[in-house]
Amino acid sequence: MPPSSVSHKKFKVLVFGAGNFGSCLADHLGDSGHDVCMWSRSADLVKTFNETHHNPECLKDHVFPSTIKAIGPEFPSADVTKSMDVLLFAIPTEGVRATLTALRPHLDDEQLPLFIFVNKGIEIATRSLTLEIIADTCGPKIATVATFISGPSFAKEIVRRQPTSVSVASLSESHAEKASQVFHQPWFRCYTGGDPVGIELAGALKNVYAIATGVSEGLGFENNTRAMLITRSLSEMTRIGAAYGASPLTFLSLAGVGDLFMTCSSPTSRNYTVGYRLGKGEKLDDIIRTLGSVAEGVTTTKAVRKVVDELGVDAPIATAVYGILYEGKDLQETVQRLMCLPPLRELQLPEQAGSHVKRLMQKLGLS
Amino acid sequence: MPPSSVSHKKFKVLVFGAGNFGSCLADHLGDSGHDVCMWSRSADLVKTFNETHHNPECLKDHVFPSTIKAIGPEFPSADVTKSMDVLLFAIPTEGVRATLTALRPHLDDEQLPLFIFVNKGIEIATRSLTLEIIADTCGPKIATVATFISGPSFAKEIVRRQPTSVSVASLSESHAEKASQVFHQPWFRCYTGGDPVGIELAGALKNVYAIATGVSEGLGFENNTRAMLITRSLSEMTRIGAAYGASPLTFLSLAGVGDLFMTCSSPTSRNYTVGYRLGKGEKLDDIIRTLGSVAEGVTTTKAVRKVVDELGVDAPIATAVYGILYEGKDLQETVQRLMCLPPLRELQLPEQAGSHVKRLMQKLGLS
Repeated sequence: MPPSSVSHKKFKVLVFGAGNFGSCLADHLGDSGHDVCMWSRSADLVKTFNETHHNPECLKDHVFPSTIKAIGPEFPSADVTKSMDVLLFAIPTEGVRATLTALRPHLDDEQLPLFIFVNKGIEIATRSLTLEIIADTCGPKIATVATFISGPSFAKEIVRRQPTSVSVASLSESHAEKASQVFHQPWFRCYTGGDPVGIELAGALKNVYAIATGVSEGLGFENNTRAMLITRSLSEMTRIGAAYGASPLTFLSLAGVGDLFMTCSSPTSRNYTVGYRLGKGEKLDDIIRTLGSVAEGVTTTKAVRKVVDELGVDAPIATAVYGILYEGKDLQETVQRLMCLPPLRELQLPEQAGSHVKRLMQKLGLS
Repeated sequence: MPPSSVSHKKFKVLVFGAGNFGSCLADHLGDSGHDVCMWSRSADLVKTFNETHHNPECLKDHVFPSTIKAIGPEFPSADVTKSMDVLLFAIPTEGVRATLTALRPHLDDEQLPLFIFVNKGIEIATRSLTLEIIADTCGPKIATVATFISGPSFAKEIVRRQPTSVSVASLSESHAEKASQVFHQPWFRCYTGGDPVGIELAGALKNVYAIATGVSEGLGFENNTRAMLITRSLSEMTRIGAAYGASPLTFLSLAGVGDLFMTCSSPTSRNYTVGYRLGKGEKLDDIIRTLGSVAEGVTTTKAVRKVVDELGVDAPIATAVYGILYEGKDLQETVQRLMCLPPLRELQLPEQAGSHVKRLMQKLGLS
């Protein structure tokens, strides 16, 4: 490979979270020559990982680079935190506020590390995006330079170095470029942009539409219907995003259409599976009980319904998913109702847009 | 279904072409209560169809509505043509110029029918879109009101009334709405728009990218890589389209991302199959010889290469497909070269855009 394409600078990286995605990114960064620590709340995991270079809870067959050190279960000390160039947050959105609140006193404002977030979803109680959680807990200065990585990237394929590409976004594009320098490799390409709100919304919304696509497949519909549903879902995501204040073109990105496409076309996606089993006639309670892991889209659907109502934007597919999950709506009748909606112009974007982002930018001192 | 959602007006429709797609659309329109004639050059097909309501050449198991009349093999007379409300062209792009040239003298300029085109691709010799072929043969007045239907729609699923949606575009949006009135049904939804150039370009370009996706799967790459390739292909299509003068948002449509997604993820797509077999190590000549039907993308790749060069736009994936098909480039080396390109901003749209469309609009008297 041409040496010009990849930075050879070595960074000290602390990964918060040792789940599926945190582990595979730690693996990627360790393999790229960076100095990587991975924090876990599990004493067992820390011990096993450091002794065997295996993660006992996920990607179990994978041997991690011996240079990666697991730390924990205590929260990383101020000394450890201050020695880092990069803090990578690979924890569920519901845990971000608490983690950042604990972390804030450990930061040196004169020499801040690069903040990278890979969680997706909307904080349920507040319906906040991570960008807003960062502003609330760490202040606008850190939020405006925080970066977000998202895209179609199954962990089990990343650890096998399958060619993968992701979106890297920040309100500060120079910080997005720094994050790209940390991650970019010939097998892991980074594409930078300046719309973290669009990237975050896409990451949350796609899970709702994956449920819809699963329902359609469970009911026995075929290729035309799947392509229709994914495309109209993308159009709906774009409309919601534009009403929120994101750029519509962000939904053409790897974090937008790329991740939507993968989540909606993979039987291994948990959200898709929830929909598929609903389509086959199972009850939601039974599916959740036997799924063995959380399907984010089920809770995100509630938050999205509220966001859509607040924005006053037309979102027939997300509303239909809500009806199926929480109002006991019949599946076949829901399909009929959607197909019988009046003919429309394609790609209708809202005329009044951006109130949510305006409010957020005020919070960040950027309005 | 709510009666408000579908027009009950009955139209007289003449379908040019009795292939896979012409037949399924004739079937849909006949079933929707319209008066449908379908023209074929094959005397055998006309005879068999009228006697048995089966098409002997495609969709062989399907029974067509007995109200549909096949006509031919002579070209439809002026009297027949003048009695029609709608002319639907379901013939290959390479045949459009000759058909319209033969048709022109049969038209009554005081009472023009609605023109609907469903062919895809670029005329090889001239690199013209169909809109330009219409202007050349029928004049700007007809071209500016011609409508184009495109989207993810396998014929065999349309005849089984699988829920399907398409894009319907015209420079005259009121004509796009008329075409939507003809076609829209609860199982066949029409979404209207005003960018026929974008719709046409997407329909042609997608076949090139389906070859690329097929190659990737043939080489054994998995979900991350497929989603990456489809998304970066969409980004490249959008960039080419914008440089040409189309609206970037058109590529978010059913005719854009919808059809791209379906063509790139279906093993029954001919273009995908060409790529897949190349990926498995077969030679292009052998594949073309044994494929049994034309893969449009193989010839479109040549035209796209020329268009890309004229526009001066960056199109690494289309250029890679050209290299594989026509310059004997090695597949693995091509993948390596693409993955080793420098990191980029996502969604780079050209600054200088639209020279092709400007020229076309001048031809149409719309500049």
